[in-house]
Amino acid sequence: MIGAQALVRSLVASGVDVCFANPGTSEMHFVAALDAVPEMRAVLTLFEGVATGAADGYARMADRPAATLLHLGPGLGNGLANLHNARRAGTPVVNVVGDHATTHAQYDAPLQSDIAAVAGSVSGWLRHTGSPAELGADAAAAVAAARAGQVATLVLPADVSWDEGGSPVTEPVAVAQRPAADAAALRAAADALTSGEPCVLFVGGEATRAPGLAAANRIAAATGARLLCETFPTRLERGAGVAPVTRLAYLADAAVHQLAGARHLVLVGARSPVSFFAYPGKPSDLVPEGCAVHAVAGRDGAAEAALEELADLVAPGTAPRLAPAARPELPTGPLTLDSAAAVVGALLPEGAIVVDESVTSGRGLPPLTAGAPRHDWLTLTGGAIGYGLPAATGAAVACPDRPVWCLQADGSAMYTISALWTHAREGLDVTTVLYNNSAYAILRMELQQVGAAGLLERDGERARQLLDLSRPDLDFVALATGMGVPAVRVTTAEEMAAALRRAGAEPGPHLVEVMVPPAAP
Amino acid sequence: MIGAQALVRSLVASGVDVCFANPGTSEMHFVAALDAVPEMRAVLTLFEGVATGAADGYARMADRPAATLLHLGPGLGNGLANLHNARRAGTPVVNVVGDHATTHAQYDAPLQSDIAAVAGSVSGWLRHTGSPAELGADAAAAVAAARAGQVATLVLPADVSWDEGGSPVTEPVAVAQRPAADAAALRAAADALTSGEPCVLFVGGEATRAPGLAAANRIAAATGARLLCETFPTRLERGAGVAPVTRLAYLADAAVHQLAGARHLVLVGARSPVSFFAYPGKPSDLVPEGCAVHAVAGRDGAAEAALEELADLVAPGTAPRLAPAARPELPTGPLTLDSAAAVVGALLPEGAIVVDESVTSGRGLPPLTAGAPRHDWLTLTGGAIGYGLPAATGAAVACPDRPVWCLQADGSAMYTISALWTHAREGLDVTTVLYNNSAYAILRMELQQVGAAGLLERDGERARQLLDLSRPDLDFVALATGMGVPAVRVTTAEEMAAALRRAGAEPGPHLVEVMVPPAAP
Repeated sequence: MIGAQALVRSLVASGVDVCFANPGTSEMHFVAALDAVPEMRAVLTLFEGVATGAADGYARMADRPAATLLHLGPGLGNGLANLHNARRAGTPVVNVVGDHATTHAQYDAPLQSDIAAVAGSVSGWLRHTGSPAELGADAAAAVAAARAGQVATLVLPADVSWDEGGSPVTEPVAVAQRPAADAAALRAAADALTSGEPCVLFVGGEATRAPGLAAANRIAAATGARLLCETFPTRLERGAGVAPVTRLAYLADAAVHQLAGARHLVLVGARSPVSFFAYPGKPSDLVPEGCAVHAVAGRDGAAEAALEELADLVAPGTAPRLAPAARPELPTGPLTLDSAAAVVGALLPEGAIVVDESVTSGRGLPPLTAGAPRHDWLTLTGGAIGYGLPAATGAAVACPDRPVWCLQADGSAMYTISALWTHAREGLDVTTVLYNNSAYAILRMELQQVGAAGLLERDGERARQLLDLSRPDLDFVALATGMGVPAVRVTTAEEMAAALRRAGAEPGPHLVEVMVPPAAP
Repeated sequence: MIGAQALVRSLVASGVDVCFANPGTSEMHFVAALDAVPEMRAVLTLFEGVATGAADGYARMADRPAATLLHLGPGLGNGLANLHNARRAGTPVVNVVGDHATTHAQYDAPLQSDIAAVAGSVSGWLRHTGSPAELGADAAAAVAAARAGQVATLVLPADVSWDEGGSPVTEPVAVAQRPAADAAALRAAADALTSGEPCVLFVGGEATRAPGLAAANRIAAATGARLLCETFPTRLERGAGVAPVTRLAYLADAAVHQLAGARHLVLVGARSPVSFFAYPGKPSDLVPEGCAVHAVAGRDGAAEAALEELADLVAPGTAPRLAPAARPELPTGPLTLDSAAAVVGALLPEGAIVVDESVTSGRGLPPLTAGAPRHDWLTLTGGAIGYGLPAATGAAVACPDRPVWCLQADGSAMYTISALWTHAREGLDVTTVLYNNSAYAILRMELQQVGAAGLLERDGERARQLLDLSRPDLDFVALATGMGVPAVRVTTAEEMAAALRRAGAEPGPHLVEVMVPPAAP
């Protein structure tokens, strides 16, 4: 058996049966091997950033990794931004990066580059396979490494792929368990929470699923602690019947306000909160002065179990308070950011997966969707934009029976716009709500936040043109239909509601281009 | 003066007055500084790969670097593939990569990553600026380093950008001269060329401009040496009145045939020829057995001067044979690859800049454009696809008085399709000839070449779908018009000619979607 076939069989035996691919010449034997192993579903993307973002979205929903298939260093580079997001999300991803044949590397051919240096910047596990005989075991090791919550990258030379001598594994390698919280840390946190002093319980990682949130909610209810979660959770379960949680604000000033006065900060599955960016004269560390930090479980710890243990310690008889079912009324008239959010809240279907890259246009969404039927909310964990459309691809592949709503800002959409083609090819049930405000509105805001707006001379036009997406205006209906996704532009709440209902009633992907004003800076 | 302003002023003083930008929060002071320094032209791109590819295309035509402005590690990652091409082209590029404030780095905020590791994989020069006072000098050093023919990357922390204390340079730093060929190497090459044994003169780098080609042609004419140039030249001057040169073939078998029987291989501005990819059972090193290699000037050497010295040694009285003016007749009827190439050859305007990412669809172009009016031909030096539309952007900015024809394959176009928006915003005179064959046709060919096609079972459908761009078909007219570029689809030679004439007669960018059959594998 050639190496490539052993690799594909080993991935399948290890529980990886989806591969988001953008192959090149060095990956042709992997492609041929797909033909022999029908258990592996290959999904073609037209750009590597779509493949890696899809693998991230897939794993967040499937709780197991997909593979990517990337072409040498440049292909990996194209996928790097969404691998960065996956790294920050702690989601498992297995990259297979094709490389030149081992005999070819010495010639420094045009496509040769330092794959290891680039892969190392995002990968918790990295291996360059040296022979077909090792490939099966290496693949299984990559999957096990990924399942611990990281990006694992296997560099696959072309001759290792095409040579005979492959030996597939038939059993997955055991995955390392998440480290449990130690008793002393739990006790210290319990003491802090019951001290009577102001406490914040800050949760993240796996603790933003329903069971963890229920436990956190019990703790907050029993102790009076403020409950917050990470600004950009990997996967936040929410909606009617789920214990609610407020996300830490993105802007440092607002986050400082949320944490103000706390004497104890208990971290479960989350790292200590820091400002997303630095701002002149403002602190990066968001922990209030004099506040003690109690880390119960780290980002890769067994956070859900820790919260349940902690709840048993400090809130033994307390039931969680769950979000009641409540939807906004359907608004009418020309769209505003609030009315667009209300339409989403009014119509979000039961069991939806929301992939949120709405950036400033999504400001109004959290309260207006809090009582919608139970759903999952995936966010931009690493801040590398261009994540929404790809992650929606992966989430839809992972959960074919659930509707995916991709809430997508215009500027961010353009980084990985070709994901729409994969939505169409695979017939994915993704409804993209494309907020078109003709601007990098967040940068208009940040220009103020960092104090640079005051430096502008004259009318600031030369600077502001770099934050503007008009001249020419982007027409996302044309872009979507050009890639086979039915699309419609809406300017009123009624039109938006009708378009979303139509999208829900028809199979396959849709795009609704929602014309909104830019958020005020 | 704040650091950012010192930086922008220093870039301008060093001869860099164009910046292809995709900024984020950490770059807001750079953006504000643009307002104060109107000598710097900032060109917004919607994706970093467009910015870096544009900088490459710009420098190939302007013979001086442009700057890019990229947002942290993920932004650099998005730009990496085209920086790889620039590195292989030996073109000067100055990257400014914004980073978190120096005080913020310790907190490992979501967008933090190992910028140096990623930048190092493509940069011949790399510096992390530590203070505003150093920034001016660092910028000048970056420009000088770039001008030696490489990618120079300056990592710019946000606080270094916003703090006072910047001190701009007012003079460029001297650029290192290209190393001259030594007399012994020239003598050895001259002896080989005049030995009477079969010789190949293989040129690349700066030697593919008209003066170098004229000297190479004299040498070939006087000595009977075969003259070839690199498969993917950085900038090939060609057409009527320029000394012609044949490019080494992309496929190893054909290249082996071109070099067969040579006893001496003289390299000027080129590296010793190697196969682009490895193929099972075939050699990577294309130098025939028993052939002596004489390197006169390396890839970064003074190749043009070396060729002129060599010509004076071996061909003192010989005049170069220049390509005569000759155009194919305009063909008629349904488009084939040959007739589409003939339309290009018949209509290519005087002084055109051709950016060629036509891949398999461009097969027929070299002979049919050889006698067109004098033009420049830019190619995919590093093999990282997604280069055409961005490079055309930069070439058009560099040479506003020359028409740019971007000959672009469909699959490759989708990696950086948003470049069309920048064509429209800047009103660039770029005519994109988009070859739509609904396939990764080169991979169909490579599947055969690497011997993987024989492994396919059943009908091979599961593998072949990964090489197919139909289901759904891409509609490039819709994509272009969605980004503000007028576009038309053509299926006959007459329609193609009419569309190209219209594009030439109107200002600004155009796209002509040319429906062609896939090249036979």
